[in-house]
Amino acid sequence: MKKKIIMLTVLLAIMLSITCGFAFAEAIQESPAQTAARAEQNVRAKYIFLFIGDGTSIPQINATEMYLAGLDAPVNLTNALAREEGKFPSGNGVADFTPAIKRLVFSGFPAHGISTTYSANSLITDSSSSATAISTGNKTRDGVVGMDAAAQKPFTSIAKQLQAKGYKVGVVSTVSLDHATPAAFYANEVHRNNYYNIALQAASSGYDFFGGGGFLAELSKNKNGGSNPKDGVDYTKDIMSVFAEAGYTVHRDRARFDSIKNGDTKVLAINPVLDSAQAIPYRIDQERSDASGGPKQIHFEEFVGKAIETLDNPNGFFLMSECGKIDWACHANDAVAVINDVQTMDLAVREALKFYEKHPDETLIVITGDHETGGMTLGFAGTHYDAFLKKLQNQKGSFDAFNAIIAEQKKANPNITLADFMPTISDFFGLYRYSADEYAALDAQAKQGDAAAFEKIGMALKDYEYADIEKAFAETFTSDMATASSTDEGYLLYGGYEPLTVTLTHIMGEKAGISFTTYSHTGLPTPVFAIGAGAEQFDGWYDNTDIYKKMAAISGVDK
Amino acid sequence: MKKKIIMLTVLLAIMLSITCGFAFAEAIQESPAQTAARAEQNVRAKYIFLFIGDGTSIPQINATEMYLAGLDAPVNLTNALAREEGKFPSGNGVADFTPAIKRLVFSGFPAHGISTTYSANSLITDSSSSATAISTGNKTRDGVVGMDAAAQKPFTSIAKQLQAKGYKVGVVSTVSLDHATPAAFYANEVHRNNYYNIALQAASSGYDFFGGGGFLAELSKNKNGGSNPKDGVDYTKDIMSVFAEAGYTVHRDRARFDSIKNGDTKVLAINPVLDSAQAIPYRIDQERSDASGGPKQIHFEEFVGKAIETLDNPNGFFLMSECGKIDWACHANDAVAVINDVQTMDLAVREALKFYEKHPDETLIVITGDHETGGMTLGFAGTHYDAFLKKLQNQKGSFDAFNAIIAEQKKANPNITLADFMPTISDFFGLYRYSADEYAALDAQAKQGDAAAFEKIGMALKDYEYADIEKAFAETFTSDMATASSTDEGYLLYGGYEPLTVTLTHIMGEKAGISFTTYSHTGLPTPVFAIGAGAEQFDGWYDNTDIYKKMAAISGVDK
Repeated sequence: MKKKIIMLTVLLAIMLSITCGFAFAEAIQESPAQTAARAEQNVRAKYIFLFIGDGTSIPQINATEMYLAGLDAPVNLTNALAREEGKFPSGNGVADFTPAIKRLVFSGFPAHGISTTYSANSLITDSSSSATAISTGNKTRDGVVGMDAAAQKPFTSIAKQLQAKGYKVGVVSTVSLDHATPAAFYANEVHRNNYYNIALQAASSGYDFFGGGGFLAELSKNKNGGSNPKDGVDYTKDIMSVFAEAGYTVHRDRARFDSIKNGDTKVLAINPVLDSAQAIPYRIDQERSDASGGPKQIHFEEFVGKAIETLDNPNGFFLMSECGKIDWACHANDAVAVINDVQTMDLAVREALKFYEKHPDETLIVITGDHETGGMTLGFAGTHYDAFLKKLQNQKGSFDAFNAIIAEQKKANPNITLADFMPTISDFFGLYRYSADEYAALDAQAKQGDAAAFEKIGMALKDYEYADIEKAFAETFTSDMATASSTDEGYLLYGGYEPLTVTLTHIMGEKAGISFTTYSHTGLPTPVFAIGAGAEQFDGWYDNTDIYKKMAAISGVDK
Repeated sequence: MKKKIIMLTVLLAIMLSITCGFAFAEAIQESPAQTAARAEQNVRAKYIFLFIGDGTSIPQINATEMYLAGLDAPVNLTNALAREEGKFPSGNGVADFTPAIKRLVFSGFPAHGISTTYSANSLITDSSSSATAISTGNKTRDGVVGMDAAAQKPFTSIAKQLQAKGYKVGVVSTVSLDHATPAAFYANEVHRNNYYNIALQAASSGYDFFGGGGFLAELSKNKNGGSNPKDGVDYTKDIMSVFAEAGYTVHRDRARFDSIKNGDTKVLAINPVLDSAQAIPYRIDQERSDASGGPKQIHFEEFVGKAIETLDNPNGFFLMSECGKIDWACHANDAVAVINDVQTMDLAVREALKFYEKHPDETLIVITGDHETGGMTLGFAGTHYDAFLKKLQNQKGSFDAFNAIIAEQKKANPNITLADFMPTISDFFGLYRYSADEYAALDAQAKQGDAAAFEKIGMALKDYEYADIEKAFAETFTSDMATASSTDEGYLLYGGYEPLTVTLTHIMGEKAGISFTTYSHTGLPTPVFAIGAGAEQFDGWYDNTDIYKKMAAISGVDK
C-alpha cells in the first residue's frame, strides 16, 4: 500500500510538472487553475503565524548565520594573518579554519520559497505596497496602505477576513504599530504617512492584541490627518484615549505586561522604552540597557510569546509579527544592528514553534521579508575572498546609540577635535589608529603568535579609513546631516545619516567583509520559510501577492 | 481513492515535518536518515542535465528578469523625469509604470532550493572547492580540484560514477575546458592552476563530448605541470596532440561542428574564436561579431544542443554545462555582460527542456550557481528606490571588448586626451558629457514630452562621474593596471582591472540602479532549480554538497 501511494504520488508530481512547468515558467503569478489545484490539497490551518522581517532577505539571514558560526570557529593564526593582509595562504595544507553555518531555526523549516517584491509602480517596492501585497494579495502603488494603486478601492486583509470567521487576531511589531507593515493588516489608507488615520483604524479594528512599539500618531505633528483628514474626527485627541474609548487596555510597563493573560481581549502592550520614532530600541541597545540596570524592557520574542498566550483559543488565531528594525538598520548600513535584530526574529519564531509543537497539524508558521534593504552583501572588495565576521563583536551598540553619544558631545563640547574624540570611537567600535611604530610592534607580536595583537591589527584603521573618518568628523561637528548629504557625492557617502556614524558603521562592516550599496531598498526577492499545516505550498518561486493567496487557501478563508 | 491518497500524502508530509523539522533546523547537511528517507521516494533519472552558472546567484537572475521586463514597460514621461531626478512622484495617482518580471525558463521550474556554498577553509568559496562539492559531495579547500582538503585523497565525481554505470558523459563550458568548474567533473588535482595536469585527465577521461572553450594548457606557460609535475609526462607536448592520441576528434570550426552527429564518441568541439584565456567571447561580443559578419562562431546553447544530439542513447547520459563567463563579468563589475550571459544560460536550458519534453519521466534538469560573484545588487544609493535597467541597452559590448579598444588606442595614440577619447566612450556606452546650457536645453525638451531628450538626460554624466572618468583615464593612459590598483584605495576603485573600463561599467550599472561591492566572490547562497524525475528533492535550503547527494540518490549511482 505504502509503495503504491509513493508511486502514485511520484506520478502525480510528474504529471503536475508536465502540466504546470511551462505555465510557471512564463508567468510570475500562479494561474487560477494552479491555485485551485493547490487548494485541492489543502488542510485547514487554525493557528496562523506570519513573521515579516522588514528589509530582510537572504543576505541578512545568511550574514547572521555565518556570524554565529564564525564566533566559535578555530583560527590558525599564521594563516589568519596572511588572510588579514589580503594574501591567500599558499600551498595546499589542511584547512586552517572550518567555516560553517549556524542555522537560524526558520531557515531549516521544511518548506521554502522565493518571492518577488516589485510594486505596482516600481521594481523596488516600499513597505506599504509590499505589506499590502502580503496581507491582501494585491499589488499597489508605493505609499498606499491596503488600497488599490489609485488609492480608491480598499482591500480586505487576511487578518480581517479571518477575524470575520471567528479567529482572534494579533499584531506585533518592533516599530510603531501604525507603521506601514503592521498597518496593512488592519488599515486602508491613501498614504502610509497618515499615521493618525491609520491609528484610528487600529483602535476600531477590534483586534485582540497589539504589542511592541507605540504610535507615531502620538506625536503632535502626525495629528493632522495627513492628506486625508476625515470628517468629524477630532485630530487633537490623544490616540491613547481613542484606544481606551474603543475598549483597549493599555500596558506600558513590565509589571502590567506580565499580568496580561489568556483570554484578555483588546490588549495594547507597548515597550516602556521607545526611540524617537516610537519603536522598540535595537536589540543590541536593549541588551546593553538590560545589562546596565536600565528600565525593565520587553523584548520582541516576549511580545510574541504574550500574544500567543493571550490569543490561544479553540476557534483559532492569526498573529502577524514584524521585526521592523532590521530594515532601519539596513537603511543605516549598520551590519551589527542588523545581525542582532535578525537573531531577535529567530527567538520570536522559536516562541511560535513552541506552540506549533503542541498543535502541529493545525498550526502554520510562515516567515518572509517584505523586501531587501541596503543592498547588503557578504563580500567587500578590500577583504577579497575573506570574511572576518567576528570583528563585528567589537561594536557595542547600534548606530542610533552612537548618534546619541555624538548629540551629547555636540552639546557638551562642540569644538572637540577628532584626536580628543577618538577614545570614544575606540570604546564604542573597537577601532584604533596606530602610529607606524605601534603597528609594526603589534605585527611582530602577532607573527609570534600573540592572539591579542592579531586582533588589534584586525581593528587598526588604515590610512584611507582614517581619512574618511576625518572628513566625516568635520561634517558631523561643523555642518549638519542635510547639508553633508545635499550633493550627489555627499549622499553617496552619508545617505542623509550622521556622517561620522555611517562612516564608522561602513568601516566596521567592511573590516568584517560586509558591504552595502544603497540607503534605500533593492529589488532582491525575499525568501519564504514555512512549517506546519499546508506549509509545502510555500515551496517554489512566486510573487509576494501569492503569499496572501497561499495563506488564504490554507486557512480556507477564500471559500 | 484519489482523496485517500492526497490525505495520506498530506499526513506523510506532516509526519515528515514533525520528524525532520528540528533536525533540519540544527544542521546544514542532511542526516543519513533524512537522505535515506528521501532516497526511498526515488525514481531513477536516466538523462541528467546539470547547469552551473558560475558566479550566479539570485541577484544575477533577478537583474536579468527585471531587465527583460523593463524593456517593454510603458513609461509616463513626467513621472519618469521626477524619478530620474531622485524625486518620488507626489500624490496618489495611478501607477505610471507597471513593473514585472520576465521569467527565465528555469526560475519557473517546479522545484526550487537554496544551497550554501562555503568551502573547507573559507566562508567565501572559490570555484574549485564549490565545483568539487557539487560534483563529489565533499567540501574541500579553495584551489583543490576533486580531492580532500589536504589534497591527498581523490574523490570520484558523479560524472565518473555514472560513466562506470554505462552513461555517456558530456562537459560543456563557455570558459576553457580545463578551468576549475569543468575540471571538477573529470579531474583530481592538488591545484586548479595545474592546467596541463588537468587537461591530461580530460584527455584520458573517455568522456564522449567536450565542447565550448579551449584549454589553458595550450598556452606554453601552463605546460610545466604546475606544482605537481607527473613522472614520465612530456610537458612540452601540445595538448591537442594528447587528445588526438587519446582518440578524440577535434572540431574547431562551424562546418566541422555541424557535422558532429548522434553516436559520435570522443568529440572535442571548440569555438573558432577564443579570448586570451581560451574562453568563448561574451555573448554580447559574439552577437556583435555575428552581426558584423565576423567568423562563424558557435553559441553556448548550440554546444549544449550538439552535446545532447551526440550523447543521446538508451543507456542514459550526464551532461554538465557551465556558463562560466557570468562569473568573469561579475568579477569585472560589468552588469551588461552579466545579463547577456545569463540569457545565454537560459537559451541553453531551453535546449535541455526540448529533450525533457520527449523523455519527461526519465530526465532530470538541475540548474545552480557555484557561488555569487561581485556582490551584485539591484539597488544603488544614487538611484534611491528606482531602477532604470533599460539604460543598459546603450552599452555595445563587454568590458573585454572595450579593453581591446583602449589597447588599440594606446598603440595608435598613447597621448590622446580625454576630450578626444570621449566620442569613443560615448559611442560604446552611450554616456555623454553636456555643458550646463546643453543640459538645460535637453531638460526643457524632456519636460515638453520629448522622449529622446529624456533618454539623453538619463545618460548624461554627472560632475562626480566625469571626475571619476578623468582620474581613471589618467591611470589608464599614463600608468598600468597593477600600479593603479596597488594601493588600498586604488584596489577599491579598480580591483586590478583597466581603470577607465571598470569606472565606465560602474557608472553604467549605477545609472541603471545596479551596484557591486567586490571584485571577488561573496558568501551569498545560490538558488537551485529542478524539473523532471526526482526534481522535488531539490526543494529546500541545504548545502552545495547535497546537490551531489541528491543527484546520486535520484540516479541510483550511490547504491
